[in-house]
Amino acid sequence: MTVTRPVFYVSDGTGITAETVGHSLLTQFTGFSFVTDRLPFVDDDDKAQDAAVRIRAAGERYGVRPIVISSCVDTSLGRLLEESGALVLDVFAPFISPLEQELNAARHSKVGQAHGMVDFDTYHRRINAMNFALSHDDGIAVNYDEADVVLVAVSRAGKTPTCIYLALHYGIRAANYPLTDEDLESDRLPPRLRPYRNKLFGLTIDPERLQQIRQERRANSRYASIETCRREVAAAETMFRMERIPTLSTTHTSIEEISSKVMGTLGLQREMY
Amino acid sequence: MTVTRPVFYVSDGTGITAETVGHSLLTQFTGFSFVTDRLPFVDDDDKAQDAAVRIRAAGERYGVRPIVISSCVDTSLGRLLEESGALVLDVFAPFISPLEQELNAARHSKVGQAHGMVDFDTYHRRINAMNFALSHDDGIAVNYDEADVVLVAVSRAGKTPTCIYLALHYGIRAANYPLTDEDLESDRLPPRLRPYRNKLFGLTIDPERLQQIRQERRANSRYASIETCRREVAAAETMFRMERIPTLSTTHTSIEEISSKVMGTLGLQREMY
Repeated sequence: MTVTRPVFYVSDGTGITAETVGHSLLTQFTGFSFVTDRLPFVDDDDKAQDAAVRIRAAGERYGVRPIVISSCVDTSLGRLLEESGALVLDVFAPFISPLEQELNAARHSKVGQAHGMVDFDTYHRRINAMNFALSHDDGIAVNYDEADVVLVAVSRAGKTPTCIYLALHYGIRAANYPLTDEDLESDRLPPRLRPYRNKLFGLTIDPERLQQIRQERRANSRYASIETCRREVAAAETMFRMERIPTLSTTHTSIEEISSKVMGTLGLQREMY
Repeated sequence: MTVTRPVFYVSDGTGITAETVGHSLLTQFTGFSFVTDRLPFVDDDDKAQDAAVRIRAAGERYGVRPIVISSCVDTSLGRLLEESGALVLDVFAPFISPLEQELNAARHSKVGQAHGMVDFDTYHRRINAMNFALSHDDGIAVNYDEADVVLVAVSRAGKTPTCIYLALHYGIRAANYPLTDEDLESDRLPPRLRPYRNKLFGLTIDPERLQQIRQERRANSRYASIETCRREVAAAETMFRMERIPTLSTTHTSIEEISSKVMGTLGLQREMY
């Protein structure tokens, strides 16, 4: 029987950094059962002491030493967390001293910086990109001039979540073009897309998976039939090949992976929010 | 004059973990100028050697030693990266041995796990939450029964990006309720929201900031006037106070921070995607 091990992501900010690293570390240990809890905004001694009490209690409840992944910038908070008896892993500590040496400067330990508010302009770019993605999601009456990327695919192949991810995390203005039946009758690009060839990226998907997704949306429709899915996917793939549009299958690919590959292929270098 | 220092986020997967940690580390060193580059999907020796060549070239171009933040799980790839001459910081290495000791097990070094595709059900929950957020964004004809959270605010106070973030990263079904003029004439909750009191979270914002945002959307309209913004914000805040709805100001708060506080306040514990 596997023992359930309590894991806490503790941070002086949102906890996103701690959880991102912690999740990556835990995925490297298979066969364990972890129960995770997020303790964000732990930014003073009192909150760190409260956190330590909760962590200690979890250890007693589960009968096993808890693991704490901490991204508290103030190292004295980390010491308070250690009073819980947990294994405390500080995600920054090992890197501070090599960086200080390399940069010949002391770090500036302001808490909760990483996912906090940046300046108004940066925030604005991000929100504008998101509004762009939301209002350019149906391919109707869209002016692709302003788009950084246009994702082309049949319905339900993964365009919308990818566009939104690109906007939200990279401020990229991502638009959609859903291929219509009429488009798919030809092997060539729809005329509206031709001026934007260098912004196009095609998404494809296994017809069986597409059927499963469409079935959830409109059960037992012609739209969701395996024949329709096979025909549409084959026609789209032919078009992408004939027109040399870079393409990726979304079947076994996460939204993060698709986004990363789209940016890499089209040469879009943006900092992550 | 500040020297521009090239920084590379290198990963066998998307690079999100490397960039998240790297960004957090770099924000602790103020007054430096960093130019960052993402090298994702470096998952074999050839790609690692190519990456090392690019990194070395950047060091020569900028005349300064590059910094590499690596999340390659395979440690032999990390050694190849070191041939670039850069300072290579491996975001996992310092934590593997303490975790192996604590768990009494060796880690399983499969590459590119953290932000790769998970199982179909998990993916589906995520996409469904996102579709829920997108289709429940205008407060019209919405059935709040299925929502995990309902964000209540005046127009342009930050509801939409927060809903989408909650859906995309935590699979939370987040709906919006935009307060109308009619709603704001009363100090009490709109009747439609009353059955969902324990799911409600109010967002507020400084009227000056709201005016700035609305001005971009509909310049010189009554909607964007400072008088309208002041009146609406004051009325919404009074309602939240009278009805004891938990509230947060979005003025100096990032989407990540708002999401984290909403989840904490409403007791929504979900693993991050």
